[in-house]
Amino acid sequence: MTETSAAPGGVGELFHLLRDGVPRTRAELSKATGLARSTIAARVDELMRTGLITPVADAASTGGRPPSQFALNPQARLVIGADIGASHAAIAVTDLSGAILAQREESIDIRQGPVPVLTWVAEAAMGLLAETGRDAADLVAMGIGVPGPVEHSTGQPVNPPIMPGWDRFDIPSWMQQHLQVPVLVDNDVNVMVLGERATAWPTTDNMMFVKVATGIGAGVISAGELQRGAQGVAGDIGHVRVARGADVPCPCGNRGCLEALASGPAIARALTAAGVPAADGDDVVDLVKHGNIDAIQAVRQAGRDIGEVLTACVSLMNPSVIAIGGSMARVGEHLIAGVREVVYTRSTPLATEHLSIVQSSAAERAAVRGASGLAIDHALSHGALFVGA
Amino acid sequence: MTETSAAPGGVGELFHLLRDGVPRTRAELSKATGLARSTIAARVDELMRTGLITPVADAASTGGRPPSQFALNPQARLVIGADIGASHAAIAVTDLSGAILAQREESIDIRQGPVPVLTWVAEAAMGLLAETGRDAADLVAMGIGVPGPVEHSTGQPVNPPIMPGWDRFDIPSWMQQHLQVPVLVDNDVNVMVLGERATAWPTTDNMMFVKVATGIGAGVISAGELQRGAQGVAGDIGHVRVARGADVPCPCGNRGCLEALASGPAIARALTAAGVPAADGDDVVDLVKHGNIDAIQAVRQAGRDIGEVLTACVSLMNPSVIAIGGSMARVGEHLIAGVREVVYTRSTPLATEHLSIVQSSAAERAAVRGASGLAIDHALSHGALFVGA
Repeated sequence: MTETSAAPGGVGELFHLLRDGVPRTRAELSKATGLARSTIAARVDELMRTGLITPVADAASTGGRPPSQFALNPQARLVIGADIGASHAAIAVTDLSGAILAQREESIDIRQGPVPVLTWVAEAAMGLLAETGRDAADLVAMGIGVPGPVEHSTGQPVNPPIMPGWDRFDIPSWMQQHLQVPVLVDNDVNVMVLGERATAWPTTDNMMFVKVATGIGAGVISAGELQRGAQGVAGDIGHVRVARGADVPCPCGNRGCLEALASGPAIARALTAAGVPAADGDDVVDLVKHGNIDAIQAVRQAGRDIGEVLTACVSLMNPSVIAIGGSMARVGEHLIAGVREVVYTRSTPLATEHLSIVQSSAAERAAVRGASGLAIDHALSHGALFVGA
Repeated sequence: MTETSAAPGGVGELFHLLRDGVPRTRAELSKATGLARSTIAARVDELMRTGLITPVADAASTGGRPPSQFALNPQARLVIGADIGASHAAIAVTDLSGAILAQREESIDIRQGPVPVLTWVAEAAMGLLAETGRDAADLVAMGIGVPGPVEHSTGQPVNPPIMPGWDRFDIPSWMQQHLQVPVLVDNDVNVMVLGERATAWPTTDNMMFVKVATGIGAGVISAGELQRGAQGVAGDIGHVRVARGADVPCPCGNRGCLEALASGPAIARALTAAGVPAADGDDVVDLVKHGNIDAIQAVRQAGRDIGEVLTACVSLMNPSVIAIGGSMARVGEHLIAGVREVVYTRSTPLATEHLSIVQSSAAERAAVRGASGLAIDHALSHGALFVGA
């Protein structure tokens, strides 16, 4: 589709130039494409009729003259972003700038398998679309984040440990049959780092998002691009060994994995063993918020453990931002203080000179915002907006 | 320069299409550019006159007909690749495919400072160029690798620990004044991973090159691109802490750094302390090659230490190839066996399922080949070939 729609001289080529949202004059468009002014004028009219580009107010223009600058109109089309977690799902309808027009969140159980969960997602998506009052034909793509490894080329989960029944399920095809638009699927932490960047760090080319929840994982953007690695499992740092944990068994079969020491359930287990009962990560967050010293110390130590693994990540990738998110990040500064303590002590000065380690700004919205961003990128780059045009 | 030379309809745009070396017909070029057949014919003739593209034999063509397919002619221009180490320098003249036409290697002392060292490099470069019998005007770019952090945007070393006098020295400007061509400078491990890929893994998009020598560092290619990080120090893994080394001081001021345990000098110190005298890494290599059991065990343990750090790297970046090079890699399988032992035991199955951990194929040639590759990429992408055209 790319080839056809962005072919030289077509409306696609012109739109591709304008998709960055920067206003341009007909003369600038003519210079950039090498097309004649008359051709440009015809193409601009064509794009204006689709609503995809819009005249931009020009201070120097006088009444009666035709508009002289044009830019992408982000309100022209809609996308859906969905964040499917182990026990919850969030869905939003956004425009092409990522602005949320309608959203919904619900408790689900991912172990019910793909058909019941995706049926709910599809119905919620259609419901939200109706809420916006917009035409279903305005919907151009959907992005979905899921809590497991995803094969990038097919959008299928591959051996996802906490998603029984989803292995190799063709989420894009199933969903496309229900919504009639292209569907992009990626790992939850990958969409989270995209959402965090869109929300708080739009000009940052090297950053990590670390999700600390039931599991621990990272999304990595380097040289401006989301990094997926050879098998799509880049960022899977939950099973790196931490020195302190030599004796702690992990369900993966190894000992001393980061996740076995610093995840929500791991902290809860350690607290319970020390006489401070905590059933899960939520209990730990509550204890910390009530000022329980044991819980605060346990969370800070978890931060140090995470910092130990992140030190290697910082040395390897030299990011300028590490955002800490996920449900355990709700404990606030105690977790991040532990991370900072180790990363700033143990990394080389050049790698940490301009490194910010911060709480996620997008927080619970990171995944749904990133999923919508996946859909927007696809729609704007792949000519999805010109099907049939 | 990019903008101008690759402007639509110019010879630059046509050359940009042909730079991948794949033969194309005039009809294919016309279709890809949207230019008229007559314009394509004129541009092809223009490029043929520069020698940059050449007719390619077409099995189906009959005598008397004009050649129907064209491709890049890698012999048309030359570049120079230089690898400046702490105590040696290697220089080669290559064509645009990276084939070496002439080369030289010499002992140097980088602590003499930039002017004496670069003067030698420039003179050696001109000498090699003369050896090839080619016109100096055929030289289009130069790439240089240096053993320290380099600011990518300026090509200047930044606080390089083993290069006294080189901090912020403007290598590109100095060299350009002597050779009259664009000069690209990068860290030695970055050029090594480029050289290793060009030599042995041309289709691999996710790989690491780990240099084990006086220091330990890595070059990272991910999603097909060399990763430099926010400050240009990506891959600087020598100061990640290794569990076994809690008591071992490192010149960086920390304790337990990988480099303080597994570099050539570190292994030599440990062996000497154990009653097996070794002055440096070269001595360790000799001992191993003579079958000394203590040296073999020390090297294997160094491999395990390196593997411990690489486990985190594998989890974070999910490469499909890790090539081990640098002077200590000459000990052969003993070092790599230690790396494999830990990485394959400690990483998740998905991340290691298709991971090859191998000895560098490019070996001592990796850096000079990568430096030449930097120059080739620049020449082919940045219109350097069309200055004045």
